[in-house]
Amino acid sequence: MLMETGEARDLLDRTLRSIRPVDRSWIARAEARQRELTKPPGSLGLLEDMACRLCAIQESLRPEAFPRRIVVFAADHGVAAEGVSAYPVEVTAQMVANFVAGGAAINALARSVGADLRVVDVGVAREIRSIGDRAGFVSRRVREGTRNMTREAAMSEPEVLKAMATGIEEAQRASREEVRVLGLGEMGIANTTAASAVTAVLSGLPPARVAGRGTGLDEPGLKRKIDAIERALAMNRPRGEEPLDALRKVGGLEMAGLAGLTLGAAASRIAVLTDGFIATAAAAVATRIAPASADYLFASHLSTEPAHAVLLELIGRRPSLHLEMSLGEGTGAALAMSLLGAAAAAFNEMATFGSARVSNRDG
Amino acid sequence: MLMETGEARDLLDRTLRSIRPVDRSWIARAEARQRELTKPPGSLGLLEDMACRLCAIQESLRPEAFPRRIVVFAADHGVAAEGVSAYPVEVTAQMVANFVAGGAAINALARSVGADLRVVDVGVAREIRSIGDRAGFVSRRVREGTRNMTREAAMSEPEVLKAMATGIEEAQRASREEVRVLGLGEMGIANTTAASAVTAVLSGLPPARVAGRGTGLDEPGLKRKIDAIERALAMNRPRGEEPLDALRKVGGLEMAGLAGLTLGAAASRIAVLTDGFIATAAAAVATRIAPASADYLFASHLSTEPAHAVLLELIGRRPSLHLEMSLGEGTGAALAMSLLGAAAAAFNEMATFGSARVSNRDG
Repeated sequence: MLMETGEARDLLDRTLRSIRPVDRSWIARAEARQRELTKPPGSLGLLEDMACRLCAIQESLRPEAFPRRIVVFAADHGVAAEGVSAYPVEVTAQMVANFVAGGAAINALARSVGADLRVVDVGVAREIRSIGDRAGFVSRRVREGTRNMTREAAMSEPEVLKAMATGIEEAQRASREEVRVLGLGEMGIANTTAASAVTAVLSGLPPARVAGRGTGLDEPGLKRKIDAIERALAMNRPRGEEPLDALRKVGGLEMAGLAGLTLGAAASRIAVLTDGFIATAAAAVATRIAPASADYLFASHLSTEPAHAVLLELIGRRPSLHLEMSLGEGTGAALAMSLLGAAAAAFNEMATFGSARVSNRDG
Repeated sequence: MLMETGEARDLLDRTLRSIRPVDRSWIARAEARQRELTKPPGSLGLLEDMACRLCAIQESLRPEAFPRRIVVFAADHGVAAEGVSAYPVEVTAQMVANFVAGGAAINALARSVGADLRVVDVGVAREIRSIGDRAGFVSRRVREGTRNMTREAAMSEPEVLKAMATGIEEAQRASREEVRVLGLGEMGIANTTAASAVTAVLSGLPPARVAGRGTGLDEPGLKRKIDAIERALAMNRPRGEEPLDALRKVGGLEMAGLAGLTLGAAASRIAVLTDGFIATAAAAVATRIAPASADYLFASHLSTEPAHAVLLELIGRRPSLHLEMSLGEGTGAALAMSLLGAAAAAFNEMATFGSARVSNRDG
């Protein structure tokens, strides 16, 4: 069941009050351990940073990257009416059915890295066929897609708060189930348009600089997309200093869910992996609302969406995977889970110079 | 047992005659299948390319990335006497003992991706303590390290052929055991110096451009390294048009083993993942000897060694992982195995637009 507005606001406030930066002394302890392991200092590169931050998040020198879970938030976008996507609106509901049936890319990738998958309908516009009461599907539809942001605000305040609450609740569930790593996933026709608008607001860059071809837009489509973003910004006048308001006006319900998940994960001390452009836009909103939440975030891949790098810069994280992907769904997050797992395995399982009787450089 | 020189030469000749480019029609069939899967065309980026090439290598539309194996070739280098490494020569034998005991980074990473590990002593200079007859350890010591290439050729012709034969034999064993993916690994104090010399020969670039800090060399050490490479090239006069001769004169026994493994894998139609600078130098020698072997090669990570990108360019492959690693041992290859596995999983397990009733962009 969806909660009331007041309840959703209380949940967000409590969550924000619970978010604390990681304790740097754990990073220092983990780094000291890294220096004892049988490898030249720093030679495992970003894997070492990942392991050290995982130690600090979990406050343990035995970091764990299992159990792991991808949460996909799905929602539609009123701005799709402006002809900004190569695919019809129906595809959102169809792909949700595909996720639940197990046939999408994220299903295969999540299985291949041992992650489970939850799919949250936070605002799909069409009926989702043949779903029934399937495991991993969560019905939390706030409304049937956002409003067309070129004409009005995409969401009301109660709507954005309720959508964020679905994400916070997912983080709380993950915490109860002792999930150690969460991956951000999304599905929503036209959602790169909303993510570009949010990116423009957070970064101050012009729409033409932050809009890309999404799922394969042609040149006239890209022009329509940039024009729609410009009109949405002119209509709504969102400001980067008010990230929640910007999310409400030009974001999306799935992005609100993901921002809530990110904040909830930080409050529950769970590591979070970004995914592509839309998920990282949501993460950037979260870190603008609560900067300490960035301590719990790990970048996964660098998308082909041209402004993805802008968002990764905003959250202060470098992507490990350069795969030229542009799918979303949490596919990049799933792949990066195996890297986080490898980082933890090396940290936990390697011998030290002393125990293995290997000469160190000063030895 | 090591084979005789004539036998090793025959094995190499037979292997080279068996290497054929992959059949492009399999790539085309795999690409056609990719277009039917429920995702925008190309949105899985390099994962799609990986799956298609795996199909062509295996001549199957059900590509497999298991069983997978890392083969680490270990050897010492006479050029270590020139003060070109931050670590003493003893470390090669000590790390081999660490590999066999299971305490090195490659052990943890191989386990984390479900790969088994074999360690081949093809030329370690010191006694390897507490090894015994352990599973996965292969004793094929051609000699106790190469000669100092600043003064003479690193290897004789029988030596380089025997070392290559150890790699071809490992590929043949992998083929018998139906291994689907092989990863290149290496260990050898001072081997970035040899790999830089090989890179200079293959690329035509000057030593100062292709030498890096290896395991953490300081500024005077880097100067000594560049100077040693310059002297080795002046002494031996290797030529890029004669890659086997270049490998013999300024390469290493582990690089010869890896070049043999790469050629043997191509002859047996097994996919091969590069690792860092040294492994990729060996792969570049292999592709210069037999250009068709490149069809079986996949890049893994981009190392911090500055000339790694030069070698990846030579073999015509782009790295997926940007982790700022510089360890070798096959660590990058192990991590990339999970990507290759995910690529195969998406290809094999995803629904089609038709079966999942998802509207395509033209639908």
